[in-house]
Amino acid sequence: MVQLSEYLNQKRRLINEQLKLYVRDYSVPGRIQDAMMYSIEAGGKRLRPILLMATAEAFGADEQKAIGVASSLEMIHTYSLIHDDLPAMDNDDMRRGMPTSHKQFDEATAILAGDALLTLSSQIIAEDSSLDAHERVYLIRELSKASGATGMVEGQMQDMLSENKKVSLEQLESIHKNKTGQLLRFSIIAGAYLGKAAGDSKEEITKMAEAIGLIFQIQDDILDVTGDADKIGKPIGSDEDNLKSTYPQLLGVEGAKKQKEKYVLTAQESLKNAGVEGTYLSALIDYLSSRDY
Amino acid sequence: MVQLSEYLNQKRRLINEQLKLYVRDYSVPGRIQDAMMYSIEAGGKRLRPILLMATAEAFGADEQKAIGVASSLEMIHTYSLIHDDLPAMDNDDMRRGMPTSHKQFDEATAILAGDALLTLSSQIIAEDSSLDAHERVYLIRELSKASGATGMVEGQMQDMLSENKKVSLEQLESIHKNKTGQLLRFSIIAGAYLGKAAGDSKEEITKMAEAIGLIFQIQDDILDVTGDADKIGKPIGSDEDNLKSTYPQLLGVEGAKKQKEKYVLTAQESLKNAGVEGTYLSALIDYLSSRDY
Repeated sequence: MVQLSEYLNQKRRLINEQLKLYVRDYSVPGRIQDAMMYSIEAGGKRLRPILLMATAEAFGADEQKAIGVASSLEMIHTYSLIHDDLPAMDNDDMRRGMPTSHKQFDEATAILAGDALLTLSSQIIAEDSSLDAHERVYLIRELSKASGATGMVEGQMQDMLSENKKVSLEQLESIHKNKTGQLLRFSIIAGAYLGKAAGDSKEEITKMAEAIGLIFQIQDDILDVTGDADKIGKPIGSDEDNLKSTYPQLLGVEGAKKQKEKYVLTAQESLKNAGVEGTYLSALIDYLSSRDY
Repeated sequence: MVQLSEYLNQKRRLINEQLKLYVRDYSVPGRIQDAMMYSIEAGGKRLRPILLMATAEAFGADEQKAIGVASSLEMIHTYSLIHDDLPAMDNDDMRRGMPTSHKQFDEATAILAGDALLTLSSQIIAEDSSLDAHERVYLIRELSKASGATGMVEGQMQDMLSENKKVSLEQLESIHKNKTGQLLRFSIIAGAYLGKAAGDSKEEITKMAEAIGLIFQIQDDILDVTGDADKIGKPIGSDEDNLKSTYPQLLGVEGAKKQKEKYVLTAQESLKNAGVEGTYLSALIDYLSSRDY
């Protein structure tokens, strides 16, 4: 096994190449293609597709079966960032040190590029010849559920409605379960599905998937207080400025860290119970918990 | 056979009921669901799903097989109207005599409701138990192609880029083939697919589908010049005010009508060659050509 950092780099390269191929092959040269490519090439950690591929690998699935749906998932994530950055939403001018889509192009183009990426995400799975028809249908259905009105989009709406309001820890977890949790959960569920994980393992890995969503979010909130602005690519304290409810605000930074450790233990325990503890998934849990950007 | 007007009413009722069921069952109560339901209940002619169902029927498919994908198609159309009406796009405050989504709710909600409807459109087909897995995959793929960066979204972008510019008849047809033509084309292609139309018939019906898209668009342009503002739900001459290129502008009103008649003949001829001339499709072609709203 190579080191995690090298593993992450390998997977990122693979996913970036694949994403560019899809955008190039499934759109026509012009402004929409340029805007899709701009946001795809803006990069990012590619956490969701990497988690999907690592889970598929842990359960013995062929990499070829996972790369398409991993790319599709990253397109959903990318479109959501383009739309979330719009003036009517979070109104962000910069992301990862580059102008956001509506700043680089214009608002209309950013809306349409997001729509095009969302549409393409289904097409990619529907056309994936390394999957049989039942696998394609299952993955499109689960990804839609995780990203639409019962998942990410609903979470984004809840998040916006909770701005300027005091929310309880319970409400905060409900928002994050939808807004970021469900796509992260999908990455694990889809990987386990492709690896044909058995009933018990599937149950355990689902527990892990849910813990991973919360670990990711708590660390995001902690970085917004204690992180390095250059590394995370946005000013420190922006959650507080935007009057967003966060874990450190509700529990203090130390309390948030403790809560996160609790979820890390749950995740590692579930991984063991699912029989895949010696895999990259274990290192990925620690990475998600301790990442500095 | 009942009269076309009664046929249209029957199908509209069926589609409206089904659309409301889907939105209610596949979202959670709250603001996003309200906004999705608002735009779905704002109504419309339901031309695309009716064309799909009439084509499926003409080729002998069971209605039950067509209603899900017909609803999915109408959701794509509905999301595209919500996004097109946004201030950054066409900036329309009213549609069909009611405030547009961003006026009734706000811009963020309208963007998210559109995203949710687009996402739901794939989910509906993926979960449609009256279709087998291969049918679901085929329909999701074709609908994605027709509505994304090689179809409707690309057409909308081309249309915006052509504002304030002189375009040729050829360019105008290319814009419309993507912007409105591809979804209309899909309605026919999908119906013929569900009815298992044979090779020759499929070719002829595809010709008809393309003609129908152009008939629809030319009539839209003519109504913008000669129509009744109350019936079409927008002021007369709004294309000219928005500096949009139209058929009457390029060919004159009479020239546009002649062009339309040419496509009507093509469509009726293809219908005959496909062996389905005695069906509602024939009446639908005339209806599309002579509709006053």
